[in-house]
Amino acid sequence: MRAIQITEFGGPEVLTVTELPDPVAGPGHLLIDVARAGINYADTHQAENSYLAEASLPLVPGGEVVGTAPDGRRVVALVGSGGYAERAVAPVPLTWDVPDAIDDLTALGMIVQGASAWLLLRRSVHLAQGESVVVHAAAGGVGTLAVQLARAWGAGRIIATASSEAKRRLALELGADAAIDPGVPDLTDALIEANGGRRVDVVLEMTGGTVTDQSLRALAPFGRLAFYGMASRQEPEPVRPATLLSHSTTIAGMWLAHVFQLPGDVMRAALDELFGLAADGRLRVVGGGEYGLAEARRAHEDLRARRTTGKLVLDPSR
Amino acid sequence: MRAIQITEFGGPEVLTVTELPDPVAGPGHLLIDVARAGINYADTHQAENSYLAEASLPLVPGGEVVGTAPDGRRVVALVGSGGYAERAVAPVPLTWDVPDAIDDLTALGMIVQGASAWLLLRRSVHLAQGESVVVHAAAGGVGTLAVQLARAWGAGRIIATASSEAKRRLALELGADAAIDPGVPDLTDALIEANGGRRVDVVLEMTGGTVTDQSLRALAPFGRLAFYGMASRQEPEPVRPATLLSHSTTIAGMWLAHVFQLPGDVMRAALDELFGLAADGRLRVVGGGEYGLAEARRAHEDLRARRTTGKLVLDPSR
Repeated sequence: MRAIQITEFGGPEVLTVTELPDPVAGPGHLLIDVARAGINYADTHQAENSYLAEASLPLVPGGEVVGTAPDGRRVVALVGSGGYAERAVAPVPLTWDVPDAIDDLTALGMIVQGASAWLLLRRSVHLAQGESVVVHAAAGGVGTLAVQLARAWGAGRIIATASSEAKRRLALELGADAAIDPGVPDLTDALIEANGGRRVDVVLEMTGGTVTDQSLRALAPFGRLAFYGMASRQEPEPVRPATLLSHSTTIAGMWLAHVFQLPGDVMRAALDELFGLAADGRLRVVGGGEYGLAEARRAHEDLRARRTTGKLVLDPSR
Repeated sequence: MRAIQITEFGGPEVLTVTELPDPVAGPGHLLIDVARAGINYADTHQAENSYLAEASLPLVPGGEVVGTAPDGRRVVALVGSGGYAERAVAPVPLTWDVPDAIDDLTALGMIVQGASAWLLLRRSVHLAQGESVVVHAAAGGVGTLAVQLARAWGAGRIIATASSEAKRRLALELGADAAIDPGVPDLTDALIEANGGRRVDVVLEMTGGTVTDQSLRALAPFGRLAFYGMASRQEPEPVRPATLLSHSTTIAGMWLAHVFQLPGDVMRAALDELFGLAADGRLRVVGGGEYGLAEARRAHEDLRARRTTGKLVLDPSR
């Protein structure tokens, strides 16, 4: 089969197309004919071995696929790695049936980004009716879904941030009430101003650095900031617990991989609700472009340069 | 009237009995004949001016009273300061009727400690059914109520910490499944061991210093530590957001004063539920001793030396 294989860690230049033997599904695993693989920001970390989970070489990158199981069922799966290929192997517990009403893009958009947005709002910050919500990187994979979910679940004012005029326009189309540039000199003030002069209840943050620092300072009493990524590769300032105490504020870390350590099948519950909202037309995955295997390098370049908007997918048949 | 008045900030020695004119209730305020005043740990900070809210001199300490309003209603009130006296003035919005079934000790135990325990479990950590809960200082005012509330609301394993054998026995009587000494060399290991080898879901922490540091390290994925006091007067280590991210853990600051900035009458909802549970015999305020006015100094000495257990009250009539 054709696949992308990395033989040394590095930037987008290490992604090259290779001919490899088909993978073999051992016990408890399933061989999937890949229709589309998802391309995630985390893959750029995987390729340079800077992700939370360490990678080893040689490596076929790509953590999520949608396709067909040997028995003909259409499934979406988390494969850890191996997704950028014509065939991939998934552990059975990380494989979920896809309803007919859900297309490949939507299935791929829900398994990581949708589930992340669901967990952030439901489990990390416990969004309540009427609360104001800041969604950073609102035109990204998680962001576009978080804006729509916050709207569907009764949020108050939704404030999006995005780095370009086109991305901010998209966030407004998806249901945000305001959209601002996160690069302003005083982001704390800008967020409060965008919220009509009031501090904000919830922030979903995946940028890191000063965006995190300044967003924390914009929180209202009992406000919560969920921190689920560090796309700028800059660490935020350390947080003094005494400061959280004196402002009654919360910072909640969230890494999707931990969902599988929760009791009960939380992923199934999340996907059921997400697929249901999508089938009802209340939630849509914004397509960010489809790349052939040989274009994987360009996909990573586009992601790292923050040129993309919405969900990127890889078509391993071309 | 007789009252305690502080004319210079300091330790317990600055608490002396004085004769003062009765306070006068201005518009929007209520003059209360004080039956009992609560004595809180925060009062020791107020007396030395090290509390979150700054104090000014001369000062009658004491933030909470139960007694009789001019129209004969029995009320419990938050007075900010002025509680250690025969009469005190409360803002009407910080005054709540007390049902007949609720005695003075119980009313005083609910207004700060009960409301704190309620907010910590309901709003700071969103306790879910079956989750393990660590309650530090479990024999204290908030701790005794938090153990009982966690039990009443379906917590899984409840692990109490307390500094003496007698306090640990009390925590077990109130419903804790295990009780340990927080002063052990490796508190992280001790908490996990007390939870049957599993990391813990929720920690309620008001000690500060290494107790906070080591408790954070005992959290399970999606675990939450609520930080609502610093009784040791030692700051915990600053927390790296990247560490919270890689463990999917949360730290939530909580200062009760902020409850009044929340929309809706959250205090009324909390007190209704707490008084209801107390009337049903499912929640009891543990009495920690009653002191006369002249014994206020000794009360603060006892609090600071951590010799007390449960709720302390002041009887201004003696």
